[in-house]
Amino acid sequence: MALRLTAAADDFSARFDALLSTKREVSEDVDQAVAAILADVKARGDAALIDLSRRFDRVDLEAVGIRVAPDEIAAARAACDAEALDALTLARDRIEAHHRRQMPADESYVDPIGVELGHRWTPVDSVGLYVPGGTAAYPSSVLMNAVPAKVAGVERLAMVVPAPDGALSPLVLAAAEIAGVDEVFRIGGAQAVGALAYGTETVRPVAKIVGPGNAYVAAAKRRVFGTVGIDMIAGPSEVLIVADHTGNPDWIAADLLAQAEHDASAQSILITDDPELADAVEAAVERQLTTLPRKDIAAASWRDYGAIIVVPDIGAAAPLANRIAAEHLEIIAEDGDALAQAIRHAGAIFLGGHTPEAIGDYVGGSNHVLPTARTARFASGLGVLDFLKRTSILRCGPEQLRLIGPAAVTLGRAEGLEAHARSVAIRMNPGG
Amino acid sequence: MALRLTAAADDFSARFDALLSTKREVSEDVDQAVAAILADVKARGDAALIDLSRRFDRVDLEAVGIRVAPDEIAAARAACDAEALDALTLARDRIEAHHRRQMPADESYVDPIGVELGHRWTPVDSVGLYVPGGTAAYPSSVLMNAVPAKVAGVERLAMVVPAPDGALSPLVLAAAEIAGVDEVFRIGGAQAVGALAYGTETVRPVAKIVGPGNAYVAAAKRRVFGTVGIDMIAGPSEVLIVADHTGNPDWIAADLLAQAEHDASAQSILITDDPELADAVEAAVERQLTTLPRKDIAAASWRDYGAIIVVPDIGAAAPLANRIAAEHLEIIAEDGDALAQAIRHAGAIFLGGHTPEAIGDYVGGSNHVLPTARTARFASGLGVLDFLKRTSILRCGPEQLRLIGPAAVTLGRAEGLEAHARSVAIRMNPGG
Repeated sequence: MALRLTAAADDFSARFDALLSTKREVSEDVDQAVAAILADVKARGDAALIDLSRRFDRVDLEAVGIRVAPDEIAAARAACDAEALDALTLARDRIEAHHRRQMPADESYVDPIGVELGHRWTPVDSVGLYVPGGTAAYPSSVLMNAVPAKVAGVERLAMVVPAPDGALSPLVLAAAEIAGVDEVFRIGGAQAVGALAYGTETVRPVAKIVGPGNAYVAAAKRRVFGTVGIDMIAGPSEVLIVADHTGNPDWIAADLLAQAEHDASAQSILITDDPELADAVEAAVERQLTTLPRKDIAAASWRDYGAIIVVPDIGAAAPLANRIAAEHLEIIAEDGDALAQAIRHAGAIFLGGHTPEAIGDYVGGSNHVLPTARTARFASGLGVLDFLKRTSILRCGPEQLRLIGPAAVTLGRAEGLEAHARSVAIRMNPGG
Repeated sequence: MALRLTAAADDFSARFDALLSTKREVSEDVDQAVAAILADVKARGDAALIDLSRRFDRVDLEAVGIRVAPDEIAAARAACDAEALDALTLARDRIEAHHRRQMPADESYVDPIGVELGHRWTPVDSVGLYVPGGTAAYPSSVLMNAVPAKVAGVERLAMVVPAPDGALSPLVLAAAEIAGVDEVFRIGGAQAVGALAYGTETVRPVAKIVGPGNAYVAAAKRRVFGTVGIDMIAGPSEVLIVADHTGNPDWIAADLLAQAEHDASAQSILITDDPELADAVEAAVERQLTTLPRKDIAAASWRDYGAIIVVPDIGAAAPLANRIAAEHLEIIAEDGDALAQAIRHAGAIFLGGHTPEAIGDYVGGSNHVLPTARTARFASGLGVLDFLKRTSILRCGPEQLRLIGPAAVTLGRAEGLEAHARSVAIRMNPGG
């Protein structure tokens, strides 16, 4: 039984605020442990990776190798179900086609006084992709991180994935090959982040690290930020469904549960103006839960963090949705387009009854790496831009310097930076 | 006397590596102090700001107010030199015109099988701008951070600036007004970052914090990252000048010193294929140094981190420049355009003898907030995109679900996420 709120209730504002500020993550203080692991990898390289993997993953990298050999990847792919490989290939093709359209254009123009301005986009040379091991090893995440990097033109894409008790997911290795990953290393945790950031004898350092991970991985990424670039720090996943009477309660319940099955701290919220739909969805959730393999996880998420909010009219859903700033927002309503237009903060919007969020997770073509935990207020989903950087370009001639140089000289002096002023003035008075 | 390297020397590679890995910043371990300050601001709000500002800035905020009143800003502006205000206005106009061209377009398209894909850009609602106090209070930096935010459509731009001993720079306050900053608060350090991230009675929280600061500010930004967005963590500034025999040694020396005067850990490097130019620049630096107001700082920077590298031909400068990945790169050479094309990593390129980097600092129009310390390998300068975020949009109909739904079902099951699979399957088999 999830939380039920009614916008008309006197205490709604306070209860909605409480829902927004609910902490869904146990913050583990792993920072000191991570600092020690990073220092160890920096100092001892491969030897540290071997020791730490033995301790944390119970795997002997001296025996099986830090790098996963190409023939091991080929063998893994051969062992995969053909249907799954076809589905991964379809997904790869759709993700690639969509992300190719994100490639930004270079620019160069001359402004009214003759100054030449512009910028050029170039790819990051090398990127590390962190892939969690065990049950959270998702081949779809490999595609979602690797394909945009390759579309951007990243030359070297190195993937790290822990092998707990020696085991690697064959479908994860196959996804790496399908996505064009260049190197795969059998390491995880903070030590893998350290290896990618600092380099070891076997792992050459990269310029940027992306991909989700547990608290150790997140803390390690935060610590190496600056030495390398990092992507966002992902929190537990969430979906918000805004639906009016046109919504099918069974479909909506299925989508709420698809989110809830991720983990017990996932969050599923329905906002509707139809109290009957609210009741029908709630009943359908309970009914569908009983037959789910991950029903314990999904039930815990729905019980602890799920919510159904009834609003007086569906237009009232938009301001609430903007405050929630959900990672995933489904809109199923007669005037869904108008509602979507009123949304300012969301990672991704899924429009209409035939766009379950799971389509976006796998084969829609858009990226499933999206800002969680209200960070859609300031962050975007992963895309090609995350693997490119912009160099600005400026060119003046003597005439332009004559026109705008004096203002630069004035500002340099006003800031107490005389050498700045002189570097401009010396060109304006070639004699001086 | 700066370091002199010759690419033809046997030990060049090792000495160039050493130059690249030189640490220019004393890393202060302020993290525990910052954690305590942030916790204090979170717990006690304004009261903490008042206590901490009394301790660190020797200012009584109970007497003068946390917020800088509009009439105080107007009075500051009235006290400024008219020429400086005109220069700031010119700079603002040029920065605004350039950044307007960076506004990205929304996209919406229908793919070959009828799936509708797209994205919409929306501004961050509220942004906090950190401005250092004291000698590093640069009005130009206020413009460079604030103008792109306003161009992006940020509704609320709140600036924080410490007032050591009660003093605020009138020109910084004037720049805030000229740039359209909405609120100014007389606070600095980690406590100002905490106020912007968590909010206090007087300071409403923001969604993103940008702007440079000392080690405390940097550590605080790193800690609040996730609660709010942050920009890059800036390190000491640097310039690389690539010049052939066409370069004017006096002009080049002036540019090297303009960088060196920033602070003792700034870095200025010249790469040239002309040994005579190298000697002439070195002599000009020593000559120009003697009359600089900030000669002690500039001399220390040039002595400790400056370098002149002589290469056999100017084309050999490009791969070295890519390894340096300089914040600022000046190219002064006969075939400068070809050299610029070969650059993959740089924050900004300044082309030709009449484009001193200081033009870009103030009035060029491009942004002067640029990636330092080799981070141009993965990061870009500040721009309008830093104040926008992208919401992806996806819409399928029954026909599209029939075509790509089965692959989503397959992948959901392959990942052990049965509820994902069912949320798609239930729409494909409306009976089931």
